[in-house]
Amino acid sequence: MSERTVFFISDQTGVTAETLGHSLLTQFDGQNFRQVTLPFIDSDDKAHEAVGKIDAAAADSEHRPIVFSTLVQDEFRAILKEADGLHMDIFDVFLDPLENELGQKSTQTAGRAHGMSDIESYMKRIEATNFALANDDGGVDRNYEKADVVLIGVSRSGKTPTCLYLALQYGVYAANYPLTDEDFDTGSLPKMLRDQKHKLFGLTIAPTRLQQIRRERRALGKYSSAQQVRYELRETEKLFKRFSIPYVDTTEFSIEEISSRILDSTGVERRVRP
Amino acid sequence: MSERTVFFISDQTGVTAETLGHSLLTQFDGQNFRQVTLPFIDSDDKAHEAVGKIDAAAADSEHRPIVFSTLVQDEFRAILKEADGLHMDIFDVFLDPLENELGQKSTQTAGRAHGMSDIESYMKRIEATNFALANDDGGVDRNYEKADVVLIGVSRSGKTPTCLYLALQYGVYAANYPLTDEDFDTGSLPKMLRDQKHKLFGLTIAPTRLQQIRRERRALGKYSSAQQVRYELRETEKLFKRFSIPYVDTTEFSIEEISSRILDSTGVERRVRP
Repeated sequence: MSERTVFFISDQTGVTAETLGHSLLTQFDGQNFRQVTLPFIDSDDKAHEAVGKIDAAAADSEHRPIVFSTLVQDEFRAILKEADGLHMDIFDVFLDPLENELGQKSTQTAGRAHGMSDIESYMKRIEATNFALANDDGGVDRNYEKADVVLIGVSRSGKTPTCLYLALQYGVYAANYPLTDEDFDTGSLPKMLRDQKHKLFGLTIAPTRLQQIRRERRALGKYSSAQQVRYELRETEKLFKRFSIPYVDTTEFSIEEISSRILDSTGVERRVRP
Repeated sequence: MSERTVFFISDQTGVTAETLGHSLLTQFDGQNFRQVTLPFIDSDDKAHEAVGKIDAAAADSEHRPIVFSTLVQDEFRAILKEADGLHMDIFDVFLDPLENELGQKSTQTAGRAHGMSDIESYMKRIEATNFALANDDGGVDRNYEKADVVLIGVSRSGKTPTCLYLALQYGVYAANYPLTDEDFDTGSLPKMLRDQKHKLFGLTIAPTRLQQIRRERRALGKYSSAQQVRYELRETEKLFKRFSIPYVDTTEFSIEEISSRILDSTGVERRVRP
């Protein structure tokens, strides 16, 4: 099947356009999409340049391009629309009804309408990220009192990336604790976690998947053996059940989904919003 | 001004609905929004429950709620629409034109239409995150050959969170190197970076801002003194200019913007898409 180009065009980062487009495109199987992001389209010249690229892609293919855009200013949207493609712009569609509802014209300012609040939110995310790094597996801080949530699970069950995502996306303070054979031997919660029981959230994962992930780190030895992996996961689940710790099986989930399920299940509040 | 509730409703994580809504809402100043995310609305019961919450918020306020949703299935969208609010759903608006354009019905499957490709993308993001962690400031790996990009800048200029975001969002391998007085004394590029000059990207920041950030870490001493901060930033910029290293001033930018500018400026390709 011949290729169709999809453009994500923004006066800012392109994150919104990409997120929007991706949500829609995953609803269509078997298509052959080439994806191009054009961020920071914030002048007439750049808008015309984008039109040139879209038209070139249209001329090169039997399919016209699909254009997901988030251009705040009418002026740039008008230029972009001259391009040969199927256009989908959220401001085009949703700004009018929102203006009517709020009884207020939109400011049409590209990006950070709220400078100071963005700096605050930046600081919160940085602090949360530093917290996650300092309280990660290998970390020494163990500052669990300050944590919003403490993820527990065996090595390579997804704790670290989830903690970092929670910090970067939501400004949430997420620490983690790696469960090891020692914890399973005692059959009780590690000492340092006992006071934090209400903050604990568990991660599990299918044995075959965990083995695959561990093998990429260390191909041989006990660490990535089927027996060890099955043992650790069995004991982990026992522990979660014994102490009524909520948990999620991460096998089929993306980092976004795991993070979102944790917030949903624990009720931990976002400190910032995307 | 009385509060208006904004709902972000999704059959999945809510990330798309939140991103969409936030882009639109920041175009309106001075509004008092209470934001509520309801993820994983993937059954009739949950959809009705969401309707109940929206109606309750509507009854509680003189303003009806605004509802940003990304519900893939017609059935749940139909239920949600009974709620008293201003409804904005991307599938409602964009699915029809896309189906027409692609000559294909959408699959209406909630979330990961592509299981295996998601696992691949998960692995790539995890690997990139591990790479960022191992090649961070304090890291020992210094595996710069494998890096897509190497961020350089002084302590607290935003290198670590940017590297982590590049990894988590785009699967990009980002390492970083902290510039210190030693580097400024020699006036040349640190040895280990010389072979990687083409991968270098610099971060700068306004002195007052850097001082503020450093003070939160260490209130007193040379590290957060105005003089030291100004000296480091002056020398950093000299270095960037002398070796023609592209750079960005992070003072006014969010992590998303910094990351997006790096990709845009360097041409580094995303390994995964959101």
